[in-house]
Amino acid sequence: MKHIVDIKDLSGTEILSIVKRALYLKKSRVVPRTLDRKYVVTAFFEPSTRTKLSFQRAALSLGAKVIDLAPDTSSMLKGETELDTLLTIEAMDVDAIVIRTRRNGDPAKFSKHLQIPVINAGDGTNEHPTQALLDITTMYEHYGKFNLRVAIVGDINHSRVARSLTEALAKLGGSVIFCGPEEFIPKSFPDVSLITTDLQEAISNVDVIYALRIQKERIEEVYDNIEEFFKNYQINESNLEMAPKHAILMHPGPFNRNVEVSDGVVYSSRSRILDQVRNGVYSRMAVLEKATGAYEYESIQSIEKFVVI
Amino acid sequence: MKHIVDIKDLSGTEILSIVKRALYLKKSRVVPRTLDRKYVVTAFFEPSTRTKLSFQRAALSLGAKVIDLAPDTSSMLKGETELDTLLTIEAMDVDAIVIRTRRNGDPAKFSKHLQIPVINAGDGTNEHPTQALLDITTMYEHYGKFNLRVAIVGDINHSRVARSLTEALAKLGGSVIFCGPEEFIPKSFPDVSLITTDLQEAISNVDVIYALRIQKERIEEVYDNIEEFFKNYQINESNLEMAPKHAILMHPGPFNRNVEVSDGVVYSSRSRILDQVRNGVYSRMAVLEKATGAYEYESIQSIEKFVVI
Amino acid sequence: MKHIVDIKDLSGTEILSIVKRALYLKKSRVVPRTLDRKYVVTAFFEPSTRTKLSFQRAALSLGAKVIDLAPDTSSMLKGETELDTLLTIEAMDVDAIVIRTRRNGDPAKFSKHLQIPVINAGDGTNEHPTQALLDITTMYEHYGKFNLRVAIVGDINHSRVARSLTEALAKLGGSVIFCGPEEFIPKSFPDVSLITTDLQEAISNVDVIYALRIQKERIEEVYDNIEEFFKNYQINESNLEMAPKHAILMHPGPFNRNVEVSDGVVYSSRSRILDQVRNGVYSRMAVLEKATGAYEYESIQSIEKFVVI
Repeated sequence: MKHIVDIKDLSGTEILSIVKRALYLKKSRVVPRTLDRKYVVTAFFEPSTRTKLSFQRAALSLGAKVIDLAPDTSSMLKGETELDTLLTIEAMDVDAIVIRTRRNGDPAKFSKHLQIPVINAGDGTNEHPTQALLDITTMYEHYGKFNLRVAIVGDINHSRVARSLTEALAKLGGSVIFCGPEEFIPKSFPDVSLITTDLQEAISNVDVIYALRIQKERIEEVYDNIEEFFKNYQINESNLEMAPKHAILMHPGPFNRNVEVSDGVVYSSRSRILDQVRNGVYSRMAVLEKATGAYEYESIQSIEKFVVI
Repeated sequence: MKHIVDIKDLSGTEILSIVKRALYLKKSRVVPRTLDRKYVVTAFFEPSTRTKLSFQRAALSLGAKVIDLAPDTSSMLKGETELDTLLTIEAMDVDAIVIRTRRNGDPAKFSKHLQIPVINAGDGTNEHPTQALLDITTMYEHYGKFNLRVAIVGDINHSRVARSLTEALAKLGGSVIFCGPEEFIPKSFPDVSLITTDLQEAISNVDVIYALRIQKERIEEVYDNIEEFFKNYQINESNLEMAPKHAILMHPGPFNRNVEVSDGVVYSSRSRILDQVRNGVYSRMAVLEKATGAYEYESIQSIEKFVVI
Repeated sequence: MKHIVDIKDLSGTEILSIVKRALYLKKSRVVPRTLDRKYVVTAFFEPSTRTKLSFQRAALSLGAKVIDLAPDTSSMLKGETELDTLLTIEAMDVDAIVIRTRRNGDPAKFSKHLQIPVINAGDGTNEHPTQALLDITTMYEHYGKFNLRVAIVGDINHSRVARSLTEALAKLGGSVIFCGPEEFIPKSFPDVSLITTDLQEAISNVDVIYALRIQKERIEEVYDNIEEFFKNYQINESNLEMAPKHAILMHPGPFNRNVEVSDGVVYSSRSRILDQVRNGVYSRMAVLEKATGAYEYESIQSIEKFVVI
């Protein structure tokens, strides 16, 4: 049993074994029912489509039963705390809880009180470990290696995705650049090789351009002229020319078409966005197996030796 | 693989094979698990109970796993388009999407971008093909033939059900009459043998009276006196006397008791309303099998030779 | 087939057989799939987390498929009555309906029109039979007998739990005390041995203290000073000293921390609250089996001979 609430909880080797298992499951014609007779509860205290569906799809594939706590119709309306709700769910003899919270740190806090594995599906602006794992899986699937240069572009200050992905890449020898308007990027950040407001500087020599979702309202708070933002930071055909020909485009979704990414590039041949979605299902299968102890990963000796079968 | 978004997409022979398969499944003691290890997503962008439950029931029976996209808690709140939501769902390696939309034509439009089958569970005032298929199944089950006279009564202008059912009956040799207040009926309509404001004229010589749901507010827009409407168009004991003794009553549900149908007739011996609901499950099983290619229908040579085993 | 809408519907012997089966299922390493290929619908017309999840968990364990009617997105928005919704669900060839309603007596009323078993998951302030069954199971599990003294403390007038539990205990030889502020307790009540406003009198000689959920607003209607209520009726470390050392604390949940129960006692060693939740799953399995006739209970000759295997 293992809580997965934070990329910090996983060693580089553990991340590798999840990537390896995810890609193995993706290639399997028939997915093994390693979670047969297990019960997985999804408890999303913040709205989500893709992440919840992805976890449900993953758990069902492995043979688990999935029960969704729809928090809007819940006991919490009656004044129960979220932790008490989770303790109650645990007492129903379920095997894992997948949780999304509005508040930073809640999954970590809750996990201290729970004997069954807690999987963090995103907490506020803090962490989104399974997103990082599917991103890493997608990058490895494309490049066959981890020592990649990745530019994360957009509203980094509000992004749990940026945080988790940077931590994961750091463990695997990747190098991260942050890029965005001054108001959207931190002054400094551990494990980031460059923080810049200049898109050209950020992406001219990278393997991956990772665009973040940006709410239009947030842009309008900063810019008088939203066109200025688009010109400087939107990932579109014109700005993509600054990047190496081989660089791929990724995005955690859901995206705002023609805000942070243009219509023309979203599903272009350089985009790996739908691969990310697909790999999300298989990465989450591997995470569910790891958290519940349903599958014993082979130990992987070193990153260098890592080869996907 | 076949999208089923429009009755026009199906030949008369295909409709027959769905009816045949539905009635075969209904009689089976154990339903075959033709959708084992398949994933069906229900994406209802407009509220629905009966249609969604019916599809879920149908898919589960065939062994499929069902995942529901609850659109109110979805990424769309974050600005994602419905098409992008569907492309994301498709990327999660699911096998069929059942979709209801507010806007006419959306399922047809979306289906052009999707490689997995799209099944239309109703789009605005346009089409509701599985409703027509379950209606046809119910009529055939009762009469053992398709060349029936059917009067559709009520607010036809706003009814996707009327549209789909008329198309389906036309393909099978049935004959359709439209009846309702002038404001609720079209001036002309393809494949309709009579359009009339006179209920007596409409139903005096039919096999099926098909009442449509009418919102009270809509009646009040047209009539000063709602009693006038009830007298002229409500299907009740008194008005039913104008119809032949053998004629049956159908309604797509949900009905407004004592608006378009009276309490006394809703569950009377002439009513096939609950049979429609039951056949809905089996018709949708047949539709899911057809859409996913899970079951190869025997070819049916002609309508004349069609016999349910 | 048997509706379970009211504790009155069950004999003492039937209650015992449910308790027996629940504890047997709890100890089973592998739960038998007695509801394989059955369909259970949860129709909660009032919000609930724990009860709905508990039923879903129970039904899934037994091999049933579960379909949830989310009433906020339902046909009822279109004017359909709840009974018509249920008749429609029944027509979809499902095997049991679990229902919660706002109005007292609705499940009993609806069950008269339905051929499939109706299980009441709580109706207004009237009955909550499966809560009483899980409570009885928890008491028996702890004490190995039924002739227990139970003090129910709090807002009894608004509690369906108090009503059902009192009826159930009366059938099994238990003895019930009601305690709370005058405004919260009835003047008289069948099968209750003592009704008192004095907590000390109520709990000084009991086996079980059963605290009810109380909405703070309701307390504030009655008391100028909420501290007065806490001093007199809150179950906390200090007030618990009035009870015998062996007495256990129970609560139907969800609880309001530091309103009717204090933080310090909620999960203390005397609390059986999480056992209640766990037993809820197994009691509801037994109820589902009983309602659908999926399992033939051995007949139990008398309460005295009753021994859990």
